[in-house]
Amino acid sequence: MRTMTVIGAGLIGTSVALAVSRAGVTVHLADRDPAAVRVAAALGAGHARGPAAPVDLAVLAVPPSQVAAVLADAQERGIARAYTDVASVKAGPEQAALHHAPDPARYVGGHPLAGRERSGPLAARAELFHDRNWVLTPSRLTSDAAFERALELVALCGAVPVVMRSRDHDAAVAVTSHVPHLLASLMAARLGEGPAGLDRVAGQGLRDATRVAGGDSRLWSDILQANAGAVADVLRELHTDLSRLVPAVDALARSGGPDRELGMRTLVDLLDRGVSGRARLPGAAPGGDGRHTVRVAVDDRPGELARLFAAVAGLGVTAEDAAVNAPAEAGLTVRFAVPQPTADRLVAALAAGGWDAVPEWAAHTPRAPVGPVG
Amino acid sequence: MRTMTVIGAGLIGTSVALAVSRAGVTVHLADRDPAAVRVAAALGAGHARGPAAPVDLAVLAVPPSQVAAVLADAQERGIARAYTDVASVKAGPEQAALHHAPDPARYVGGHPLAGRERSGPLAARAELFHDRNWVLTPSRLTSDAAFERALELVALCGAVPVVMRSRDHDAAVAVTSHVPHLLASLMAARLGEGPAGLDRVAGQGLRDATRVAGGDSRLWSDILQANAGAVADVLRELHTDLSRLVPAVDALARSGGPDRELGMRTLVDLLDRGVSGRARLPGAAPGGDGRHTVRVAVDDRPGELARLFAAVAGLGVTAEDAAVNAPAEAGLTVRFAVPQPTADRLVAALAAGGWDAVPEWAAHTPRAPVGPVG
Repeated sequence: MRTMTVIGAGLIGTSVALAVSRAGVTVHLADRDPAAVRVAAALGAGHARGPAAPVDLAVLAVPPSQVAAVLADAQERGIARAYTDVASVKAGPEQAALHHAPDPARYVGGHPLAGRERSGPLAARAELFHDRNWVLTPSRLTSDAAFERALELVALCGAVPVVMRSRDHDAAVAVTSHVPHLLASLMAARLGEGPAGLDRVAGQGLRDATRVAGGDSRLWSDILQANAGAVADVLRELHTDLSRLVPAVDALARSGGPDRELGMRTLVDLLDRGVSGRARLPGAAPGGDGRHTVRVAVDDRPGELARLFAAVAGLGVTAEDAAVNAPAEAGLTVRFAVPQPTADRLVAALAAGGWDAVPEWAAHTPRAPVGPVG
Repeated sequence: MRTMTVIGAGLIGTSVALAVSRAGVTVHLADRDPAAVRVAAALGAGHARGPAAPVDLAVLAVPPSQVAAVLADAQERGIARAYTDVASVKAGPEQAALHHAPDPARYVGGHPLAGRERSGPLAARAELFHDRNWVLTPSRLTSDAAFERALELVALCGAVPVVMRSRDHDAAVAVTSHVPHLLASLMAARLGEGPAGLDRVAGQGLRDATRVAGGDSRLWSDILQANAGAVADVLRELHTDLSRLVPAVDALARSGGPDRELGMRTLVDLLDRGVSGRARLPGAAPGGDGRHTVRVAVDDRPGELARLFAAVAGLGVTAEDAAVNAPAEAGLTVRFAVPQPTADRLVAALAAGGWDAVPEWAAHTPRAPVGPVG
């Protein structure tokens, strides 16, 4: 790939342009707002003027509702040999391409799983997509050539390609992104109507839980509208869950009463389901990944554990990597779960320091390998 | 304060003990689980044996439902001259202290706004409370002496004391912490039942939004039960919000139709209310804090903005601190909003580098001062 056009010089489009420019591709920038193009160009994302001849790939970095029209227009003008987009909804654009675009074979849908709180070209970063998944949703008409170009784009951005059907993608992002956004907005809206003193008791957890609600309302209403069917399905399930939860918590608020025990069971069941649902998220559970375990015996004396953690700090190992047992007999047993090379260095360093440290045979099960979804 | 007892050697109790021990106070640790005490002592948090004489302050670091019983027992044994707790619900413990504790004047409720995903003594950190708010809820009977001791504890932990009425505190944490936890659990539970491929499209936003749902189910069911009345009130409001939102999104899923416009208005209104509600959170909005603005004129050439950001990187100034205007005439105008000493250095460094940089008169309004809530 030698030449590319990015239509839409916002956060995502400008980040794509920066990454690809850095890799040596000649990038042309377009946006209906000329100021955005000038800022992106001044950032080094590419040229503010259009190309003289069709480019290898056009990336449509516009909101979901605009993909169909921008694609049809670009293909009518014949600006590129292949086309992809970066919108977070995929079934609608695919249908539009199949039925209305001049050349659906040259289009493949795409969605990089990356974003930031800030929007606009100034928030762009060449590294935004590094190690992030980038979903591609080839349609039944997408040509191999267009698909290969999109794969090349993903590689140039340092992202991980994941192939999905557009409908599966949309059902999944409804659960992982669109409905969480609405819930964060519902919660954040309650903050606006909450009691005085609320800001005094707001911790980091709330900032994290409502972070996405700080996003651009216009862009998000566009996204939610484009995936309204899948979003409504999940919202309906949540509404049912909440209809069960409200009377359960009400019962707990009344002292005594026969519903109290049932209320507590409903509550604990929900919390437990939340813990196990969260375990489905990649990176949410520490450990795993074929870590090795090193067992260290520690004397039962004040400060002795602190001395151990100080001894391993130089290897980048912390209390986060440790679990402690305090058997009734005597002494504490600390188990560090660390990558294998670190485990070897840990045993050596601790032995040299006079600690009783032994490797335990691979106690952690590696995660299941990740392959494309049907 | 010279001596202290911490009852409950979990995350919070051990962190308090580590912070106070480091400040030179003699700390005694107690827990119904002797292993937790041994681990905390081995971390350097204090002594595993009880004190010979009453201590200056006893900190009850037990779940909300146990505060009343542990306080009554400790006061019957007369183990301390003052008592406080760290539970995240305050009205129930206060009522119990007023009506059932042997010496309610010696007790003041407390709630440090700090926590971690991990629980247990091994997750403890002396710095956990640093710069965090620590709510104190003196009752109508709390003595000045007990209140002063609690203030001293807050200071030794490096936290910021905030005085509130217990009921106001509980209504506020229902909105900022307890209901967000339940929503995160509801969302995370949906992940467990979501479609295949869901883990491929899960980004950092979802990990953040559901982080709190990874917490200890038993502790959280205890917390939620202890604040069930206030939690149920907020949940009911959310249920109503959701009852309006589901038909709105349903209308958007149907192509055309007269409800579509109303659906879109409902959606945009919710998103906008979320954005403004989130602005109530401290630290959520960048800028403010009496920042000064430096204006820089930048030529409209490819890469020129990148050159500017490279020039200011050494001062710790980034694109995050910048806003750009691209007026129609010519050139770009960049405004950096930075603390005043940085602004002075920025102007000097940019002028020396040949940039056209001028300070603008204090454009940012400082935040309103923070005082105690009535």
